[in-house]
Amino acid sequence: MPYRHYYWPGIQGRGEYVRLALEEGGADYLDIALLDPKRGGGVPAIMRYLEGRDVRRPPFAPPFLQSGRLLIGQTANILAFLGPRLGLEPRDEAGRLWVQQLQLTMADLVSEVHDTHHPLAGRLYYEQQKAAAKRRAKEFISYRLPRYLGYFERVIERNRAPGPWMVGRRLTYADLSMAQIIAGLSYAFPNASRARLRSCPRLRALHEAVFERPRIARYVSSGRRLAFNNEGIFRHYPELDAH
Amino acid sequence: MPYRHYYWPGIQGRGEYVRLALEEGGADYLDIALLDPKRGGGVPAIMRYLEGRDVRRPPFAPPFLQSGRLLIGQTANILAFLGPRLGLEPRDEAGRLWVQQLQLTMADLVSEVHDTHHPLAGRLYYEQQKAAAKRRAKEFISYRLPRYLGYFERVIERNRAPGPWMVGRRLTYADLSMAQIIAGLSYAFPNASRARLRSCPRLRALHEAVFERPRIARYVSSGRRLAFNNEGIFRHYPELDAH
Repeated sequence: MPYRHYYWPGIQGRGEYVRLALEEGGADYLDIALLDPKRGGGVPAIMRYLEGRDVRRPPFAPPFLQSGRLLIGQTANILAFLGPRLGLEPRDEAGRLWVQQLQLTMADLVSEVHDTHHPLAGRLYYEQQKAAAKRRAKEFISYRLPRYLGYFERVIERNRAPGPWMVGRRLTYADLSMAQIIAGLSYAFPNASRARLRSCPRLRALHEAVFERPRIARYVSSGRRLAFNNEGIFRHYPELDAH
Repeated sequence: MPYRHYYWPGIQGRGEYVRLALEEGGADYLDIALLDPKRGGGVPAIMRYLEGRDVRRPPFAPPFLQSGRLLIGQTANILAFLGPRLGLEPRDEAGRLWVQQLQLTMADLVSEVHDTHHPLAGRLYYEQQKAAAKRRAKEFISYRLPRYLGYFERVIERNRAPGPWMVGRRLTYADLSMAQIIAGLSYAFPNASRARLRSCPRLRALHEAVFERPRIARYVSSGRRLAFNNEGIFRHYPELDAH
């Protein structure tokens, strides 16, 4: 039975971390909300789980994944579930905890990226909080981004195993997410990202290595991967990028 | 060998979720940064792991927990590690995933609480971003807080097992964290929390049930539990509270 993945149509968002894992793991899955609403897809398919009175363990928000009778929410939790099933994490407990720890640190970074364009209210438009967004984005680019990138660069550096990955000698779901973040940062803040990544050769190599994986390359060229756009988490507003 | 817990001295912060689990689980632990710096405690004990060049898998930030040779970071990840060891999660996979999913949703809520007083920059003082904080806090209280509280109230309501808890008939680490959040919200936003919790009888009952647990009550009355204060995540600025 295929996995059933649920995420807002039209954007990569947090669903993309799950998709990359499913794709790299060669999983059989359906991206339910990308199906025609007349055939059970679209936003109503998501709302049914968020608002249905008969859902015993409702998720707070997408993404969520259905596997048989299980309904699993929260990106990092979904990846912890898929990790052993798709061969995307180490077998030892220390390694599994470390991969999940990295994933959660990336989740923090992704939230901070979101808040660069929505520092006051997720409910309101970017244009309604543009002045605050400029201040927060400047802060993010000057202080937070270098701190996060420096940290993850160090993580790869301290991995004693050969190869481009963060944990051990095999790719994990944390590597997929890291590559996705680098792609997103490069879309949202092309100037700042280029400048900051100059001192992060290992992160650049990881990013390339992930998108060169045959299954990921096939996914990207299939046209099924949604493009980055200004409805998602990584948005390109030139005024928020550093020069 | 006792667990070694590391978190910034002086505030409850995210370390408190770990402490409540250790206390309720009757664990033998040392709160390293609360020891005298002359005896290996204080902030230097934390910095040694954040910045030490010999740390193979460095955490990005506290809290982190040492257990034998393991060094585990990220609050929810620490709790997932402690859950089975301290009897604070269900034994079945579906139950464990659900508890962790709830914990991660609470982590999102806690980040939003933090950003009510620091919407622009964690690095700057509250006073330097007070106008933006007022707007973000108003938004939080009007839209986000009711949404989160309504969600968690529903989670308890839909738990078919008897008792005050979120998952099954036994207390889990998610219940401890939920009670801590209600305590924090009541400190930070006494007016708004009182108003919003009026329609959440199950959350109020859970909060009471947790703080009535013998080990938690003993911990609170021991004087070891730090008081809420305006250096932490839950801060009381009357101008940010609703009237």
